[in-house]
Amino acid sequence: MSKPNSPVKFLSESASVDSLSTEPLPNSQKIYVTGSRADIQVAMREVSQSPTQQQDGSLEENPPVRVYDTSGPYTDPSVEIDVRKGLSPLRDNWITERDDCEELAAFSSNYTQHRAQHIGLEALRFHTTRKPLRAKAGKNVTQLHYAKQGIITPEMEYIAIRENLALEEAAIAEANAQQHPGESFGANTPAYITPEFVRSEVAAGRAVIPANINHPESEPMIIGRNFLVKINANIGNSAVTSSIEEEVEKLVWSTRWGGDTVMDLSTGKNIHETREWIVRNSPVPIGTVPIYQALEKVDGIAENLSWEIFRDTLIEQAEQGVDYFTIHAGVLLRYVPMTAKRVTGIVSRGGSIMAKWCLAHHKENFLYTHFEEICEIMKAYDVTFSLGDGLRPGSIADANDEAQFAELRTLGELTKIAWKHDVQVFIEGPGHVPMHMVKENMDEQLKHCHEAPFYTLGPLVTDISPGYDHFSSGIGAAMIGWYGCAMLCYVTPKEHLGLPNRDDVKEGIITYKIAAHAADLAKGHPASQLRDNALSKARFEFRWEDQFNLSLDPDRAREFHDETLPKDSAKVAHFCSMCGPKFCSMKITQEVRDYAAQNPESVESPETHFAKAGMEEMAEKFKASGSEIYHEV
Amino acid sequence: MSKPNSPVKFLSESASVDSLSTEPLPNSQKIYVTGSRADIQVAMREVSQSPTQQQDGSLEENPPVRVYDTSGPYTDPSVEIDVRKGLSPLRDNWITERDDCEELAAFSSNYTQHRAQHIGLEALRFHTTRKPLRAKAGKNVTQLHYAKQGIITPEMEYIAIRENLALEEAAIAEANAQQHPGESFGANTPAYITPEFVRSEVAAGRAVIPANINHPESEPMIIGRNFLVKINANIGNSAVTSSIEEEVEKLVWSTRWGGDTVMDLSTGKNIHETREWIVRNSPVPIGTVPIYQALEKVDGIAENLSWEIFRDTLIEQAEQGVDYFTIHAGVLLRYVPMTAKRVTGIVSRGGSIMAKWCLAHHKENFLYTHFEEICEIMKAYDVTFSLGDGLRPGSIADANDEAQFAELRTLGELTKIAWKHDVQVFIEGPGHVPMHMVKENMDEQLKHCHEAPFYTLGPLVTDISPGYDHFSSGIGAAMIGWYGCAMLCYVTPKEHLGLPNRDDVKEGIITYKIAAHAADLAKGHPASQLRDNALSKARFEFRWEDQFNLSLDPDRAREFHDETLPKDSAKVAHFCSMCGPKFCSMKITQEVRDYAAQNPESVESPETHFAKAGMEEMAEKFKASGSEIYHEV
Repeated sequence: MSKPNSPVKFLSESASVDSLSTEPLPNSQKIYVTGSRADIQVAMREVSQSPTQQQDGSLEENPPVRVYDTSGPYTDPSVEIDVRKGLSPLRDNWITERDDCEELAAFSSNYTQHRAQHIGLEALRFHTTRKPLRAKAGKNVTQLHYAKQGIITPEMEYIAIRENLALEEAAIAEANAQQHPGESFGANTPAYITPEFVRSEVAAGRAVIPANINHPESEPMIIGRNFLVKINANIGNSAVTSSIEEEVEKLVWSTRWGGDTVMDLSTGKNIHETREWIVRNSPVPIGTVPIYQALEKVDGIAENLSWEIFRDTLIEQAEQGVDYFTIHAGVLLRYVPMTAKRVTGIVSRGGSIMAKWCLAHHKENFLYTHFEEICEIMKAYDVTFSLGDGLRPGSIADANDEAQFAELRTLGELTKIAWKHDVQVFIEGPGHVPMHMVKENMDEQLKHCHEAPFYTLGPLVTDISPGYDHFSSGIGAAMIGWYGCAMLCYVTPKEHLGLPNRDDVKEGIITYKIAAHAADLAKGHPASQLRDNALSKARFEFRWEDQFNLSLDPDRAREFHDETLPKDSAKVAHFCSMCGPKFCSMKITQEVRDYAAQNPESVESPETHFAKAGMEEMAEKFKASGSEIYHEV
Repeated sequence: MSKPNSPVKFLSESASVDSLSTEPLPNSQKIYVTGSRADIQVAMREVSQSPTQQQDGSLEENPPVRVYDTSGPYTDPSVEIDVRKGLSPLRDNWITERDDCEELAAFSSNYTQHRAQHIGLEALRFHTTRKPLRAKAGKNVTQLHYAKQGIITPEMEYIAIRENLALEEAAIAEANAQQHPGESFGANTPAYITPEFVRSEVAAGRAVIPANINHPESEPMIIGRNFLVKINANIGNSAVTSSIEEEVEKLVWSTRWGGDTVMDLSTGKNIHETREWIVRNSPVPIGTVPIYQALEKVDGIAENLSWEIFRDTLIEQAEQGVDYFTIHAGVLLRYVPMTAKRVTGIVSRGGSIMAKWCLAHHKENFLYTHFEEICEIMKAYDVTFSLGDGLRPGSIADANDEAQFAELRTLGELTKIAWKHDVQVFIEGPGHVPMHMVKENMDEQLKHCHEAPFYTLGPLVTDISPGYDHFSSGIGAAMIGWYGCAMLCYVTPKEHLGLPNRDDVKEGIITYKIAAHAADLAKGHPASQLRDNALSKARFEFRWEDQFNLSLDPDRAREFHDETLPKDSAKVAHFCSMCGPKFCSMKITQEVRDYAAQNPESVESPETHFAKAGMEEMAEKFKASGSEIYHEV
């Protein structure tokens, strides 16, 4: 087991979430900003700061810093968390008031009904009376469909407020003025994001809002090149290890540290029941790769897969509330031989399964031949396509090859078909790619997939770092995020070696938050530098607590600092153990600053100023001003 | 203390190195390749691999993989390590046979003599009878001087063999053919590196060989844009924490994991004695920032620094064998006010010390006014300049500003002066820079510093990641390494928070090895992809042990894999715990491969081939070939 003393069997009576995952973050409070209607309550986190002590001893306030918050109700102390009940369905009204879907008497999937009758599953089943929703006959319930009609949904308004951190246009403009203009490579993020802009980007297919009508618990978020770069965390058990409870734990843990979406890649036991627990308790969109479960249904024998089994699996998962499906419809029979001479062949699980099926039957990929039928299902629940890159390179040697780009062009054709049905689409990308070949991936994707959002796994920029692949992939992720990739799929330190545990999940997420934020800064996303500026100001002023609290992982920042200087007094000390008191550049700089402040004329031209003034006198003046800098706050 | 049970007091009688630091790496052997003369023995590491099992059961050999090795004699079981004796001086002959330096009767530095008389230091002193070497009157002993005379030194030949991994020209060409052509941004690395090429690069000032004549223990290495990207590890105590023994431990540990040079940044007690232990036991060049020790000598009061004290410190350290000095001679009086409006002012310790001195005395930086005298000292011992960027930005907000680039242009002027004296020079760079502003740093440096090698700290691409700054700086490091930066100064997870311990040092080094290797791949350095290809082939063939052993950190790779699948049988299993047996894409791909191999015609055009053949028959054929794939080796 990845977690030593976790229960092998999961009991739905006793299910709970570790309090570690639900404590509010230090000095942070959850705020809800009301939109144009009372039931649009946009959640975000506000980090308060301590004041700055001025030379004259007076205090200057430092405004609280708002940060984008993916943790949902878990970090709100006023909400009572019970994973056995699930989260409250904040989107229920919005979905029903559109009056284009209906509640079904029963679940449509044969498999779902079969599992429901299984007595032995009682103990680990999520107990709910929820009835599935589906579009009324002839209706299309996708956000893309509404956007094309010119309708601004509450989801779109929620997203606009969220992307602006609920700051007024003036405040954003001011913050934006305090950052470097970015290089966006043709992306067109406006200075202030309006609900209408969100609608227009969705309508153009440049952005998606994964929002299954059967997952009303999720807080609206958007994936697109002109918005904040998002990250996905993969969880899920395997035949070898992990339990349902661990996976729910990983879900909550992922959203706490910044996972914008979570993919449940379970390939082990009780996939159906595990997913129900995850969806009902997830404040973020959930993605899956339905072919994994379909393969389980045929005991892992790819040749035995069929359209019928797959179709039932899509409906099963769509009615549970999965927000996006990875579909490997671009792995065509004629592309398979292109992988024969590769160093690492096909490394996508879904890709290899479909390749095996194609060769075994000498037929074209059934996901491709049945693509329009899949679209019909997607639009009945608003499930978004994540068109899988089944032929992505699995090594530096195989990067940007014929097989990879042949599939990419097919994904572009499928994108057009999905759009014809008003079904939302984004495209998956590699993989393993050396730095100088990363941009070509973004350029080719934009060109062949008509600006549909790109969603990449890394890419890893070298193969020689097992145990550190979260980092070697994070380099490629930061770069491609800057070039225009809309969402980055995290990689954990366990990649290529084993199933990640909770600590690995956190390490992967923080690494990818860094990559995504670095990309936002480089693109010049409005107000993205706000947090960097606040943290650096706190650092310069030795407001240690503020520096910890504004960081991506306050717990680790504090822990590392306290390892050598645990005392509270060190939290106001004007140095740390790295340089010690006499060698702290920031402390010395403060002295230089104080001097400049007291001698404004010196800032214009020191020479002339020093020439004017008597050297000795000036020297004394400086020494005096610099002498007692180390004041305890 | 950063290490719980390390002795506070260090005893020269009992000093030793942890066996963890001296064990050979798994499945690796140290090899020595002889150059044109018997005393040129170039050390490298050879990782042997297990054979590949073919379909027919026969075994195909996999050649051993050579890797660049910075660990010196420590990983050679045939060498007896005794840190109290120090390493053997492999360069002694080369230095003395040039007959341009002389052994001094006594150390020239007053401070050295003063310390030597100090009885209280007996217990922690490194005991040696070594006499210092210095250039004879009128002689210049720098590698740059020899290069300009057209002399190819043994050091240069050693480096050529080392950079080629001792592969023959044909072998390099073949390996090079198996990698992607890189994008080098104007760097001109030849397909095969000859001793003459090394000489010409040094002569042009585009590369440096830090090789103080008083540090004969170090193995020659080169820092330049047309060679492998190097990394530096910072160690050293502070007033707050750490002992001599820990620092020697960190030195050996750093070289084990790939530190190409090590900077001793000690600012605490017994800096002189600590340095002697480090230099005598270092197989890699050692760098320092002499102003730190000079400041200690005046009790941390910057105003009390003087040229005389600094000069004596340079001679003290040059005669100990320090290979390069960071000198902040570009921090000019008139630049200091440019930092007044910065978010984080001056963040370089040396920079802030010199700024304080300048303002206190209203005089120009004495490192600048005495620069030619410093050159005279440098060329008498062959100490290389690392011209410090005292005004580097310490936050995203301050990146690429007036103060930073003003200093850079001054460093360019100083470069010309140093070259006039045939003194080797490289240039230090930032710091904190968002991704889209990184390249400008490289371009400006090349332009204003006449292609002298660039040596950067990161840069960090965001400020909000304390606890993970090794990674946010690693992103910038990989990018600037690709753009042409010759050496990357590592950052550890403790950056901004405290003094790194041994684990932090390793984490920082592996992170930076990834960045440097990713840069080599992107630049298309000859044979840089060799190791990636070998590891990926091992991965695809489920040679787990080979995959671990070829990785940058075999210990962690094995540990992570074994966390979920500890049994030996798992080391030959055709899956890992991430996907489990049924979902391993590589295993399924193997089946697809086997099929293609048995039906070569299918590789040309599957459709026509499948059309020709009877569908059913082919299906059977494939199922048969794919059926019993899971064979225990």
